[in-house]
Amino acid sequence: LLQTAGDFSVEKSIILALDAMGGDHAPFSVIDGAAQLIKRHPGVSFLLYGDKAQLDPLLAAYPKLQERSQVFHTDEKIEADEKPSTALRRKDTSMRLAVEAVTRGEAHGVVSSGNTGAYMALSKILLKSIPGIARPAICTVIPTEKGRAVMLDMGATVSAEASNLTQFSLMGNIFAQEMLKKSRPTVGILNMGVEEIKGHGAVQEAAALLRQIPEIVNFVGFIEGDDVHKGTVDVVVTDGFTGNACVKMAEGMGRMMLGILKKHMRKGLLNKIALICLLPTLKKLRKQLDPGSYNGAMFIGVNGIAIKSHGSASASAFANALEVAVRMVDYDFTKNIEKDVTAARAVLGDHIFHL
Amino acid sequence: LLQTAGDFSVEKSIILALDAMGGDHAPFSVIDGAAQLIKRHPGVSFLLYGDKAQLDPLLAAYPKLQERSQVFHTDEKIEADEKPSTALRRKDTSMRLAVEAVTRGEAHGVVSSGNTGAYMALSKILLKSIPGIARPAICTVIPTEKGRAVMLDMGATVSAEASNLTQFSLMGNIFAQEMLKKSRPTVGILNMGVEEIKGHGAVQEAAALLRQIPEIVNFVGFIEGDDVHKGTVDVVVTDGFTGNACVKMAEGMGRMMLGILKKHMRKGLLNKIALICLLPTLKKLRKQLDPGSYNGAMFIGVNGIAIKSHGSASASAFANALEVAVRMVDYDFTKNIEKDVTAARAVLGDHIFHL
Repeated sequence: LLQTAGDFSVEKSIILALDAMGGDHAPFSVIDGAAQLIKRHPGVSFLLYGDKAQLDPLLAAYPKLQERSQVFHTDEKIEADEKPSTALRRKDTSMRLAVEAVTRGEAHGVVSSGNTGAYMALSKILLKSIPGIARPAICTVIPTEKGRAVMLDMGATVSAEASNLTQFSLMGNIFAQEMLKKSRPTVGILNMGVEEIKGHGAVQEAAALLRQIPEIVNFVGFIEGDDVHKGTVDVVVTDGFTGNACVKMAEGMGRMMLGILKKHMRKGLLNKIALICLLPTLKKLRKQLDPGSYNGAMFIGVNGIAIKSHGSASASAFANALEVAVRMVDYDFTKNIEKDVTAARAVLGDHIFHL
Repeated sequence: LLQTAGDFSVEKSIILALDAMGGDHAPFSVIDGAAQLIKRHPGVSFLLYGDKAQLDPLLAAYPKLQERSQVFHTDEKIEADEKPSTALRRKDTSMRLAVEAVTRGEAHGVVSSGNTGAYMALSKILLKSIPGIARPAICTVIPTEKGRAVMLDMGATVSAEASNLTQFSLMGNIFAQEMLKKSRPTVGILNMGVEEIKGHGAVQEAAALLRQIPEIVNFVGFIEGDDVHKGTVDVVVTDGFTGNACVKMAEGMGRMMLGILKKHMRKGLLNKIALICLLPTLKKLRKQLDPGSYNGAMFIGVNGIAIKSHGSASASAFANALEVAVRMVDYDFTKNIEKDVTAARAVLGDHIFHL
């Protein structure tokens, strides 16, 4: 979907720091993905952190990319199954160096397909948080019956209080403005029912807070789980525990359904004919639901643009994550958050914004 | 699926109290459903609570059912959108009278397709809780890639502490023993990751408690959202907020996928040919994933067999809910729980069992 988003142009030169060694298909997917992005946005340039001996030959295949890339050699990389606590102690990993490029102001944003826990921890420690934001969230784009929606938190903040959910709503709102190209995205809090009395204290208090700032957040109330893919709202807000479990369970449902369909379709002549006739449609379906086209979750709330690409991302999926980074830099995401935090703080009070 | 479960026979005479007026298609679905059940289990008899003027003509079509049914007239019924607090104050609703039949020992179990909140509240107040069980849960059967699994809580207990999750595990285990016909079902706690350090305090403490009672619960550790439909475990344990959101979101994903598939298949000649060839397969798929064949969630933890049928249940779906009631009565569900609570209490201590 992002691939077809030709409705904006990057005027200024954007510099992205890439963890060239993170992810199952790194460094190939990283270099190929960057080459794909540069075709769409020739003004972007890259700082690549990783094994120079592997990166240089890959870059040689893409002269335009090579021209706009600087390689910073490091032997160290964080493994996918490495404990974040261990990973954090190592100072020269490709992921850490890439995040540090943002801290030092050398890059506008960082993208990695590496170990999520380590990446989150490094981003929090090195980038710190946006003033007023107590806890970060992972924000992602998901498919709906109506098109697309934004959902957060996917697992950064296990238990969210009312203030956290309020902050997530502010941030998800800004993310959706750019990703969905809507000036007033609708925002809903995930709950067990749509009635005001439903759910625990945190969701009820957050709803009450959001109702006080209608100019800042277009809050429409509670939604239920089945509203998410219906596309009832543009921004789905929940705590990290619930968001993580929900999205993974829904993915599992999707996989199960396709699996059952495929299994049935292998049997019998009629099914085989159908399968052949259906190939173009199944391809479309796969593309419409392809996790790769939604790749690029944002660590939202840290003071800098940090985009997480899926560990198994292909080159084109990685290019989508790069596109998210480009768009968030271009949209001045962090400044927009700061502006809305200031405005919301004036209404809701300092205690909601961790000051 | 329950319809084909011919592997047990009900020897003793089971009496079920039915809220004949609850649900979108009541009383037709209730009477037709009961007639379907009685074909499978001729020993079951019914106490029917509702409008005699509507029920008698319906019963007349099924002489065998009529013979084994007693109708108790009431004009009052709880509306689907009625507030539980209002519904509770009315003393002569069909739902309340049906639950009271269990309290008075006149029926072995109660089944209703009516207002979930009111039904849960009435069951808690009238049936009280099983000694040692602090909070109830809603337990349901869901499809998986491997067959079926049991999941709880679907929304009875919004926030669950470690003791609640431990009790849910004990109860889900017994429910699964009968519903999945497994003597040692595997039990997993839903979490954000499978590592021991993941998640909030309640899931970690519950896991530590369950590891102390391996003879009682076959606890295999944490699972993630995508494990649910994979069928990684037989019993998925979570709090009501998460369970409710997850299952509804997964249902929404299923609906979205079928919707997209249908939409694509209406276009173009190849797709139309495919659609015709696929009809038998789509029918199978629908049957395999049909919510009706999984109908019959159990209010687990209340001191009596109370089964919730979906509000939109058809007659055959309602028959499945009745079958769940029959099986739970036959399996002596409540006594089995009491036995395991006693055994677990001896190891874990009284404070985990609300005594």
